[in-house]
Amino acid sequence: MTHYSKTDIDNLDHLFKINLINSCSGYKSANLIGTKSEDNLTNIAIFSSVIHMGSSPPLLGFILRPNTVPRNTYENIKTTGIYTINHVHESIIADAHHTSAKYDADISEFDMTILQEEYKKGFYAPFVKGSPVQTAMKFKEEYPIKSNGTILIIGEIQTLYFEEKLLERDGFLNLSKGKVATINGLDGYAVPILKERQSYQRPKRSSS
Amino acid sequence: MTHYSKTDIDNLDHLFKINLINSCSGYKSANLIGTKSEDNLTNIAIFSSVIHMGSSPPLLGFILRPNTVPRNTYENIKTTGIYTINHVHESIIADAHHTSAKYDADISEFDMTILQEEYKKGFYAPFVKGSPVQTAMKFKEEYPIKSNGTILIIGEIQTLYFEEKLLERDGFLNLSKGKVATINGLDGYAVPILKERQSYQRPKRSSS
Repeated sequence: MTHYSKTDIDNLDHLFKINLINSCSGYKSANLIGTKSEDNLTNIAIFSSVIHMGSSPPLLGFILRPNTVPRNTYENIKTTGIYTINHVHESIIADAHHTSAKYDADISEFDMTILQEEYKKGFYAPFVKGSPVQTAMKFKEEYPIKSNGTILIIGEIQTLYFEEKLLERDGFLNLSKGKVATINGLDGYAVPILKERQSYQRPKRSSS
Repeated sequence: MTHYSKTDIDNLDHLFKINLINSCSGYKSANLIGTKSEDNLTNIAIFSSVIHMGSSPPLLGFILRPNTVPRNTYENIKTTGIYTINHVHESIIADAHHTSAKYDADISEFDMTILQEEYKKGFYAPFVKGSPVQTAMKFKEEYPIKSNGTILIIGEIQTLYFEEKLLERDGFLNLSKGKVATINGLDGYAVPILKERQSYQRPKRSSS
């Protein structure tokens, strides 16, 4: 196998390094995070770091990189206390990815892409119309990460929306029925097809 | 669209709730985390929460759920300071998933599955033989999460190993060439095929 030591990695060309290290954790979620500033400027941005933090209460987390991403998302979350998380359907991959371009705060990515704002039940932040899974989120906690200056943002699900056909009898949302994308590295997109569901695992009886 | 409010979610049957909330963040990484206790007992466990934290320095994070997972992984990381992260190849999905069964600390999951230990360059923790991407990790930081008692563990990549065929010219690791799995929910597995790579995005010129 090919290998790179820590020193090798530190000495890599910047673009090669960020491609390599962004690919090496495995497949990542593809989500558009929607926010709106207090003066009504909307923002929508692609994130690949949304993770499940726990089900009771229902919490999701994600990582913000203040040094590389415009901070509109962070500022809007902190001032309004809310945001939305929207899955990327295969039909909007190119436009979802385009939200990674660095626009000034007074330009909404909704105006520069095919992505359309959607509002539900008076929730202040915009959802992405047509997204197969959407969550209305309330900001709960933030943890500044000492090692590199990123921030872990944790929010609680206020309302979970999804296309009915995704739901299986036991609560499982079959993302492949929604043609939801996953991200490999910084810019690789795939739309997985579910292979199998494994059952709940109990210990095997030891043969000894 | 179907929707569940926070109150609806809180009142769901436990299994339905954990299936639903574990599915709603999007696709997740499929990784086996390998550790060894000070008295040489190995442990290998499946995780779906490994995320990229940053490239300079190269950091990966993951979430531990002390209340639901046996804590061998955590104890071994804290006492030895090291661990491995190994991607799940499609050929070992069933056995990788079986490591979620709750075995006592004196039983190694390596003895109860087809997974085989591999040691490299004197690194104390076991890798999973045949895994297409493997990282030797050094523990850096932990953040106990107030909202639900989970723990964010952050480690630094000491050595990154991968099958040579995965590497593209610009540092991108093409996980689909390694038949790497992704996880949907608690127990759904898919092996994605790369659809497309998007380019680095710059702002469009405004039409106004």
